[in-house]
Amino acid sequence: MRVYNFSAGPSMLPLPVLEKVQKDFLSYGGTGMSVTEMSHRSKPYEAINAEAESLLRKLMGISEEYDVIFIQGGASTQFEAIPLNLCAHKKADYVVTGVFSEKAFKEAGKFTDAKIAASSKDKSFTYIPRLEKSMFRADADYVHICYNNTIIGTRFRAAPDTGAVPLIADMSSMILSEEVDVSKFSVIYAGAQKNIAPAGVTIVIVKKGLANAPSPLCPTMLKWQTQINEKSLYNTPPAFSTYMAMEVFKWLDGLGGVKAVQKMNEEKANLLYDFIDNSAFYQNKVEKEFRSIMNVPFVSPSEELDNQFVSEAAKLGLIALKGHRLVGGMRASIYNAMPKEGIKALIEFMKKFEKNNK
Amino acid sequence: MRVYNFSAGPSMLPLPVLEKVQKDFLSYGGTGMSVTEMSHRSKPYEAINAEAESLLRKLMGISEEYDVIFIQGGASTQFEAIPLNLCAHKKADYVVTGVFSEKAFKEAGKFTDAKIAASSKDKSFTYIPRLEKSMFRADADYVHICYNNTIIGTRFRAAPDTGAVPLIADMSSMILSEEVDVSKFSVIYAGAQKNIAPAGVTIVIVKKGLANAPSPLCPTMLKWQTQINEKSLYNTPPAFSTYMAMEVFKWLDGLGGVKAVQKMNEEKANLLYDFIDNSAFYQNKVEKEFRSIMNVPFVSPSEELDNQFVSEAAKLGLIALKGHRLVGGMRASIYNAMPKEGIKALIEFMKKFEKNNK
Repeated sequence: MRVYNFSAGPSMLPLPVLEKVQKDFLSYGGTGMSVTEMSHRSKPYEAINAEAESLLRKLMGISEEYDVIFIQGGASTQFEAIPLNLCAHKKADYVVTGVFSEKAFKEAGKFTDAKIAASSKDKSFTYIPRLEKSMFRADADYVHICYNNTIIGTRFRAAPDTGAVPLIADMSSMILSEEVDVSKFSVIYAGAQKNIAPAGVTIVIVKKGLANAPSPLCPTMLKWQTQINEKSLYNTPPAFSTYMAMEVFKWLDGLGGVKAVQKMNEEKANLLYDFIDNSAFYQNKVEKEFRSIMNVPFVSPSEELDNQFVSEAAKLGLIALKGHRLVGGMRASIYNAMPKEGIKALIEFMKKFEKNNK
Repeated sequence: MRVYNFSAGPSMLPLPVLEKVQKDFLSYGGTGMSVTEMSHRSKPYEAINAEAESLLRKLMGISEEYDVIFIQGGASTQFEAIPLNLCAHKKADYVVTGVFSEKAFKEAGKFTDAKIAASSKDKSFTYIPRLEKSMFRADADYVHICYNNTIIGTRFRAAPDTGAVPLIADMSSMILSEEVDVSKFSVIYAGAQKNIAPAGVTIVIVKKGLANAPSPLCPTMLKWQTQINEKSLYNTPPAFSTYMAMEVFKWLDGLGGVKAVQKMNEEKANLLYDFIDNSAFYQNKVEKEFRSIMNVPFVSPSEELDNQFVSEAAKLGLIALKGHRLVGGMRASIYNAMPKEGIKALIEFMKKFEKNNK
């Protein structure tokens, strides 16, 4: 029996994709071999690599003004690659809205004059600060934001105005979940393991021309231009993850693209938030305007009940509902692949649990 | 129909492992989810991570004096991580026996005083130079070798004596194919995509205490100690590749371990080399003593025939036999997962091709 997996990432993948990949696992597309065995210099893999890029461009509306690469290392590696690739003035401004944006800021400080331009730490990251152009240094190499806070469950509602300063967004926990105007950003990056594919591939979307003056200290493997020049095939790529990303992109495209999936995600999130808001037992602490539609943290009246909730839910196949260790409580991560039925099953359980423990 | 895939990497994986992974693809070990969906902070994944390490330790005889990590980035990232992690004297000696060891040397030169202590470039890398302790600088941070040259098909027969200078070996294309005395090395590293698992995971085996003084310039994500401290779970790991590595380790263990598989590999390689040596049509240019048992390059009497060979073989399900673009000709990569039947089928084809084109 398949469970409903509410993990913050790696997380659920669409069942039709898993079934397709399973079916093709010993021989992909008549090649007589598994994608796990395929040379990255072979025609079938080059086709996968090209199709993954082309579908992502279609789904996100990425113009030819941007390069797109599929690389290794995770968003954590990008925390350091960013200041090493964009370093003309050695100044960078960070908006700190959670643990990961704070981590990105700290790592950047090793290589550039990193400054916190705004933060929501004063209220435990439960909102997104109002941002204005004047808050950023005009000669900063970039402004960095994390679009969706996986741990607390906040999200930006639009790209902030940074004037002429390039805007960089970590979209790991919301990429492809809602429509985004890519043209507002200079760099978008995302680890794939939440909304796209198995862990191991990281997507970086870079405005053309931006990556051509990395720091002399930047390792070759952290230079975006290294992989841009070689179409993500400078060295052996994380091929199986990229292949599954391609299959997920096809699935999304078949659903009607990001516009359609955003509607589904909003419906799913609204179901859950409405239930929480109408309950006197459960509580979500995020300012309504900034609530994430991907990560929904909530608490019951006590820590003891929280623990009981997580453990009883798991027995019913509603798993990985434990909140992040820094905040406790529960968290339901409801990425693209979580079906509406999963939300309904969760709400049913929440009702019963409330009834039994009020 | 499954093909015999002679690719230099990514390359064939054992069919029983592929079948097992396929069977468990929608629900691993009764968890109700695919390993591709599993949180790296979950008990089932922590068990996979721990078992992969423990089996590798058993198979290679790695003592507790070493740390073992499973990370992202490929051997290419290690080319830079090495001089950034080991930099007490900012001097490093390289033995250049092929394209990849040369690349490792060049990348290191950005961060350390890298010196070529010995090279076999004078004879197009067709041998391994005789090495003596006196050839290395006594105050070098390390001596770097590539144990098996994937492109030309040479291999070291034993660890060279570097005295008190730590020895580092890139074992990407031969790890687990033959017995190696780990205690002779300070660092062993290998991309998994040749002998172990799908691309995306890199194994680094580091002598304890060696990694505790990285360069201040070393990005956090390139510091070995970062992942050593967190048992390879500092950030989201390439979980599916590590899981398949674990399954391949189990398979190897079931075959009788590295000793047993070495015997099989030697038999396979001997079959092929003997056939080539007894033929007036095919030729392998490597000095016999240094022939790789993993990568067997050979040529026919002309480039035209080489091309014809590769193309006709592919039609019969003997694929990826084209030699590396730098050397041309053919190359049969015959890693652990290539069955003896694959070698026999190749030799049968070689016979026929010779007969038809003599």
